[in-house]
Amino acid sequence: MTTDTITSFTNTTVKLLRSLHDKKARQNDGLFLAEGMRVVTEAIDAGIYPIILAHGVSVRTHPVLQRLVDATLGSGGRVIETNDDVLAKIARKDNPQMVVAAFPMRSLTLNALDRTAMNIVLVLEGLKDPGNLGTILRTGDAVAASAVILIDQCCDPFSTEAVRASMGALFTQKLAHASWVEFEPWLRAAPAQLVGATLNTSHDYQAVAYKKPTFIFMGNEQSGLPPAYEQACDALVKIPMLGKADSLNVAISTAVLAYEVVNQQRGQTIV
Amino acid sequence: MTTDTITSFTNTTVKLLRSLHDKKARQNDGLFLAEGMRVVTEAIDAGIYPIILAHGVSVRTHPVLQRLVDATLGSGGRVIETNDDVLAKIARKDNPQMVVAAFPMRSLTLNALDRTAMNIVLVLEGLKDPGNLGTILRTGDAVAASAVILIDQCCDPFSTEAVRASMGALFTQKLAHASWVEFEPWLRAAPAQLVGATLNTSHDYQAVAYKKPTFIFMGNEQSGLPPAYEQACDALVKIPMLGKADSLNVAISTAVLAYEVVNQQRGQTIV
Repeated sequence: MTTDTITSFTNTTVKLLRSLHDKKARQNDGLFLAEGMRVVTEAIDAGIYPIILAHGVSVRTHPVLQRLVDATLGSGGRVIETNDDVLAKIARKDNPQMVVAAFPMRSLTLNALDRTAMNIVLVLEGLKDPGNLGTILRTGDAVAASAVILIDQCCDPFSTEAVRASMGALFTQKLAHASWVEFEPWLRAAPAQLVGATLNTSHDYQAVAYKKPTFIFMGNEQSGLPPAYEQACDALVKIPMLGKADSLNVAISTAVLAYEVVNQQRGQTIV
Repeated sequence: MTTDTITSFTNTTVKLLRSLHDKKARQNDGLFLAEGMRVVTEAIDAGIYPIILAHGVSVRTHPVLQRLVDATLGSGGRVIETNDDVLAKIARKDNPQMVVAAFPMRSLTLNALDRTAMNIVLVLEGLKDPGNLGTILRTGDAVAASAVILIDQCCDPFSTEAVRASMGALFTQKLAHASWVEFEPWLRAAPAQLVGATLNTSHDYQAVAYKKPTFIFMGNEQSGLPPAYEQACDALVKIPMLGKADSLNVAISTAVLAYEVVNQQRGQTIV
C-alpha cells in the first residue's frame, strides 16, 4: 500500500476523520483522533498504530513522518496526504498540526489490571471536564501511575479536548472504566489504601503514611466525592488552602496529592 | 437608581457585554466579564464592584443576588435584568450562569507590590494558554501567593477563559505585569530567591531550601524559560518525572512546586 493524496473536504476518509469530534461517531467507528507528530510517535512507541494517518504536504519528507507512515502502512493502516485546509477542517482549528491520526479506542476492565506491582493508582469519579481528565492522564504518566480508573459517569477520555490535554499520555496510561459496585469489591480483593480527597476533613494530606499501592480518589469538580464513597475510604485527606476560596482545580489537587505519594515512596533518596 | 429590564440582543448594554469576549473591546472599554453568583460575590467581598451587573429573571428574588444588586447600585454601577437567551448570548454558551458582570480591569506595576511581607510569588513568562493562567491564579489563592507577576508577552488574564478557570481568584490575587528588564532590577532591590522550573537540570525540587520570599519562575508551555532568564535564577529545579514523556502541564508544575514551598514554610506544624 502507498499514500493517497486527497484534497476534497467530502472525501469519505476526510469525512470520517472530521466526524470523530463527536462522541457518537467515535462509538460507532471505535476510533478517536490524536494530533501532532510527537503524540503519534508516542502512540506507535507504545505499540498502538494508527488506523488512518493524515499528513500535510509540507512534512512529506520529514524523517519522523516517514517512520510514522511506515508504521501505519506496516500495521495495515491507511495513509493520506492532504493540504492545510483539509487538515484544519479535520482538526476543527486554524493552524492545525501537520499530522492527524485515527486510533482504535481501548479501555480496560478492572480484571485486566495487574494488582501485583501497583504503586499509585488515580481513581476519578464523575469527572466532567475533558481538559481536567486529559491533564490528569498527563500527570499519571509523570508519577508513573499504575492505572487511571474512571468510576461511574465521567467525561470521555477520547474526546479531542481530553486527548489534546493528555499530550500523548492517553497512549501510555492504563485506562479502565468501572461502576462503583464493580470497583469496591475488586479494590478490596487485594491490598490497597483508598485515599479520598475532600474538603470534609481537617486531616492534612501530609500527615498520612501512604502505603503501596495507594489509590488516590478524586470526585466531581463541583460536588466532590459522594458521601457513601468517602465512607469507603481508608483515609480522607485535605490539601491545606491558605487563601480566600478554599478551592483548587481537581487536576491540580490530584497532582499535589500524587506527588506527595511519590515523594514518600521515593523516601530519602533525594540529593 | 433601579434595575432596567432588557430583552433585546441589540440593546447597547447587552452589545457592550457581548463584546467583552474580544481583547480589543476589553482594552477600549477597560472592562472584562465574570460570571456566576459566587464569583461576583467574591469580587465584591474583595472590594471590586461591577460596573454593569446582568442577571436572569429567575434569580430576581435570590437573597445573594439582592446583595450583589445593592453593592452594584451603591457603588454607582448599573443593573439589568434579562432573559436566558440574552444571558446565553452574553456568555457565548448554552446554560449560562444567571449572573454576569462587567468589572474594571486592573493590573499593578511592580512598584505597587509590598516587598516587606512576601512569602511566595508566582512569576510566569510567556504563558500562552488562558486556561493555564486562570488555573495558576486559582492555585495562587490556595497557596496565599503574595503576587502573580506576568513577564513579557503572556495571554490575557482578563479573557473569559482565564477568568472562568480562575474561579474568582482573579479578584483576590495581586496581579502585576512587567517586562524582564523591569523585573530583574526590581527583584534584586530586596531579598528574594528566584527559583526557575526547568527540564535542563537534575536538581530535585525537594532538595532546595526555599527562603522567604520565594519567587517561583515558570516559562512558556512549549519552550520553557529562555536561557538568559534561567541564568538569572538563584536555583534551577526539576520535578521528577517517572513516566515516558518527561512533561507536565505548566499549571500542574507550578502547583507542585508552590506546595513544596508552602510545606517547607509551614514546617513541622502538621498533625
